[in-house]
Amino acid sequence: MTAWRAGEAWRAGEAWLAGERQARAALSFLAEPGDPLLGGLLRSMPACAVLARLADGMIPELAALFPVAAQSAPPEPGQVQRSLKRMRSRLEELPSPGSLDAWESDGIRLACPGEPEWPTQLDDLGDRQPVALWIRGKADLRFACLRSVAVVGSRAATAYGALVASELGADLADRAMAVISGGAYGIDAAAHRGALAAGGPTIAVMACGLAFCYPRGHAELFTAIGETGVLVSESPPDGAPTRPGFLIRNRLIAALSRGTVVVEAALRSGALNTAKHARDLNRPVMAVPGPVTSAQSAGCHDLIMNMGAYCVTGSADVLELIAPAGRADGDLAHGPVLPADQLDEVTASVLRTMNTKAGRGPATIATLAGVDLDTAMRCLGLLSAAGLAERCDQGWRVRKVS
Amino acid sequence: MTAWRAGEAWRAGEAWLAGERQARAALSFLAEPGDPLLGGLLRSMPACAVLARLADGMIPELAALFPVAAQSAPPEPGQVQRSLKRMRSRLEELPSPGSLDAWESDGIRLACPGEPEWPTQLDDLGDRQPVALWIRGKADLRFACLRSVAVVGSRAATAYGALVASELGADLADRAMAVISGGAYGIDAAAHRGALAAGGPTIAVMACGLAFCYPRGHAELFTAIGETGVLVSESPPDGAPTRPGFLIRNRLIAALSRGTVVVEAALRSGALNTAKHARDLNRPVMAVPGPVTSAQSAGCHDLIMNMGAYCVTGSADVLELIAPAGRADGDLAHGPVLPADQLDEVTASVLRTMNTKAGRGPATIATLAGVDLDTAMRCLGLLSAAGLAERCDQGWRVRKVS
Repeated sequence: MTAWRAGEAWRAGEAWLAGERQARAALSFLAEPGDPLLGGLLRSMPACAVLARLADGMIPELAALFPVAAQSAPPEPGQVQRSLKRMRSRLEELPSPGSLDAWESDGIRLACPGEPEWPTQLDDLGDRQPVALWIRGKADLRFACLRSVAVVGSRAATAYGALVASELGADLADRAMAVISGGAYGIDAAAHRGALAAGGPTIAVMACGLAFCYPRGHAELFTAIGETGVLVSESPPDGAPTRPGFLIRNRLIAALSRGTVVVEAALRSGALNTAKHARDLNRPVMAVPGPVTSAQSAGCHDLIMNMGAYCVTGSADVLELIAPAGRADGDLAHGPVLPADQLDEVTASVLRTMNTKAGRGPATIATLAGVDLDTAMRCLGLLSAAGLAERCDQGWRVRKVS
Repeated sequence: MTAWRAGEAWRAGEAWLAGERQARAALSFLAEPGDPLLGGLLRSMPACAVLARLADGMIPELAALFPVAAQSAPPEPGQVQRSLKRMRSRLEELPSPGSLDAWESDGIRLACPGEPEWPTQLDDLGDRQPVALWIRGKADLRFACLRSVAVVGSRAATAYGALVASELGADLADRAMAVISGGAYGIDAAAHRGALAAGGPTIAVMACGLAFCYPRGHAELFTAIGETGVLVSESPPDGAPTRPGFLIRNRLIAALSRGTVVVEAALRSGALNTAKHARDLNRPVMAVPGPVTSAQSAGCHDLIMNMGAYCVTGSADVLELIAPAGRADGDLAHGPVLPADQLDEVTASVLRTMNTKAGRGPATIATLAGVDLDTAMRCLGLLSAAGLAERCDQGWRVRKVS
């Protein structure tokens, strides 16, 4: 053991051992996203302990622990070994812990399980839960996800699909639902843009690191999403996009949202993979029909015909499935998801500047609440996501609970 | 009673009392199509007896019989009286029995329950079964209906709907399924034309009498349907179209077919009424999705979302629902619906001229079978409907039973 401790690997690991949060950040550099081996280990020991053992080279011990820790069916032992060795081999390339500060000053923050911004519904992923999430943008991820719908589809969208996705994004935003998508060309971008146009928060779940802009043509879109919504990735900030990364990312889109709508998808589209994750997570899977003559709608029709997906034609159908009127647990379509008396003081002061009738502009609200405009906008995003405030013609107002 | 027997009403009725067939023909002039009162009476006594009692003015006796005879829930007694009086009042306007011969020489024939051409699945209509059917065209109605699908939809079809309906009509005809529709503008016409283009039999169920051409613009279409398929109506030949007649007719479209496909329908389209009849008759209801931005597809989406209709994108989906592969009762998708040894001698001789490999043209087949071309075409239509023969590039061949 002493020989290993003296090695570079150990020093790289030790540098990150300042606490649980740092250890999880380090593990997000080492593991493949969604690695069920790491997820299983993190059920039975702290991230610090996993990282220290990796650095110590205690791979047989970790491998032996895995079948005990795992929630999912254990993979073959060789696979466990390979995964652990891969993590260990990457220790040498770990950036210094100081880079965490550098990213934070760049506006990229880290959220770990149990922290205020961590969306608890990710627990549903079991061993495939992310080690940590990297986040950028003004909205609070957990808050925004409370009332959210995933709207996904083909990159090769038709004009019809793009129109439907953007209208759906805008209509859902108008009903105070956050739109979650993957930031890709086509349907994803149309859904994000629709939500932005309606002034609602939208969430881009990225397959690459947040310091990486992919696709490049979406630099302005991602900036706009960060202004009112949030971008999130389980890859470390400098992680480049990989082909399998997109499929692995899809489970996060499905898990973060209360249901998934596929707007357009060819028969082999990655959007069908997101739908499958949503189904596996017992979230409603919805598909928008289209012309039977369009290959880009064939996947949607297949979902309806063969996968039990609900046929939906617009936001009203989606809301009826996500939050049926009169449903006991939350009554999302009508009531707020968070009582007003659980808001932090700044957000509560912003809420107090509004009433249910005439709207007020953000600048007026900021002045009345005694906060700067950015803070007011962030609070309005939170209040919208919580179902407590809504946009109207004149600006923002308190949402009536009917 | 003697006073009534001396009246015009009695003489009009008596003139038709040459037998059960004539009495049913006469009743088809007197009753509203689908009148459940008449349907109920015809369960408990012959048509001759109903007609004689109507002519005799024995309306109270008939009305008293009805609740005993009826299969469906009895309507209020006043309704029974009004229906019987209306039938009696029309006796004066009955054409002479000789007009039956005149229509037959015009190519319009009569089919009554129990006769060879009567489609037995009309029994499913209970008291709303037609009294008799008036038929025109070369195909045999019962034969053609054995393998049939109703394809219906809006008169105000879009280019998309018309394309889908005509392709569906052609593809179903290629699979030896007869296409049943209502002969209207829009989807109906496109479905009929698609079937005709593929050389398959198609069935137009008319809401008016067969001597009446409605809509007028479809005179050529109806002539073409008569050449290989069949036109059918429960209204007497000179019956003019009426608004309620279209809705009443729809139950025949649903009952004659093994399932109903709605290609395009606005939310209040009459095609949804046909779908409702099909559902009530336990036939599969299918709907073709379309753009959610199109009002003409809204009825189809409503059927899928709220009425339990199957989403179908083409003939393969339809056949899978109408005749699932491997199904015990008939295995329509693969096997014939009628054994070859039950064919009449002429049709059997036409079948013997073909094999399962290269196709033969109708003229060759006619020569080999020793029949004229018209007879050969009619037999080929029957054989196609029975699932025994199919069209191919070179003409017609025996259908392989896989």
